[in-house]
Amino acid sequence: MRFCSSCGQPVAKMIPKGDERERFVCLGCATIHYVNPKIVVGALCVHEDRILLCRRAIEPRVGFWTLPAGFMELGETAEEGAVREAMEEANAKIAIDGLLAIYSIKRIDQVQIFYHARLLDPAVSPGVESQAVMLVGFDAIPWDELAFPSVEWALRRAIELRQQARAG
Amino acid sequence: MRFCSSCGQPVAKMIPKGDERERFVCLGCATIHYVNPKIVVGALCVHEDRILLCRRAIEPRVGFWTLPAGFMELGETAEEGAVREAMEEANAKIAIDGLLAIYSIKRIDQVQIFYHARLLDPAVSPGVESQAVMLVGFDAIPWDELAFPSVEWALRRAIELRQQARAG
Repeated sequence: MRFCSSCGQPVAKMIPKGDERERFVCLGCATIHYVNPKIVVGALCVHEDRILLCRRAIEPRVGFWTLPAGFMELGETAEEGAVREAMEEANAKIAIDGLLAIYSIKRIDQVQIFYHARLLDPAVSPGVESQAVMLVGFDAIPWDELAFPSVEWALRRAIELRQQARAG
Repeated sequence: MRFCSSCGQPVAKMIPKGDERERFVCLGCATIHYVNPKIVVGALCVHEDRILLCRRAIEPRVGFWTLPAGFMELGETAEEGAVREAMEEANAKIAIDGLLAIYSIKRIDQVQIFYHARLLDPAVSPGVESQAVMLVGFDAIPWDELAFPSVEWALRRAIELRQQARAG
């Protein structure tokens, strides 16, 4: 950040009065510009014991497999964002069943929220951000070709919960 | 947003190529400025069956009671943010026990994440953003003087979970 988005004058990093952290403050109008972590919302979508995975068509990690997920937008709930992403990335119509996991990833200042979801229709197909989509059994997950650590964590967590549910 | 924070030139709302939503796009350098929901992190902090509440010293809702909570900052996890807020608002040293609830509040574009926490020391005192702090029994919550709906939801959810735990 170099300029004030309110008035166009230069900003400088300084600690505002009453604050304890450096913020971008406008040297013209004194507006304080806060920068905060972003939210990624996604879903583990299941149909008849198979999971929906999408092969990424965009950077980063083109060609690797991911759960449908993306940045939460203004004007939606986290659940609505996860439903939207499944539609955008896999033309998948889903229903959210509940929270799967939340991961804070400090290095990239993201909080990633993953939900359990059901595919309402097994007819899925790649959206513009996907090269391919597939429904894969829990025993056939391409562990070495996953796009991001959080995708692996969410899948392992889902398997763990599934085993616990089966155990009792 | 009226000016580009990268180059200082005016921005205009338009739908970028490949996107489906209006974004602020710089008319000079073409940078797309995404605006996303913000994350609030807070904790329901318990000590010997009493809950920590803070009476707000700042707008909005000055004088009303809240759970310690605030905007998540860069460079921290959601849990670390909740621990920091308890210290800032009530000089309270806490340990996070697990997730209590997540609320998406579309009207203000916030996702609020509340944790269960234990007070590690019952000696609490108001921080600069609090007029007062108190440890209150579950049966003495000032329901009519709570600052925000999400504070009430989180408290009611905690009571519900507590009753379920006692029932079985």
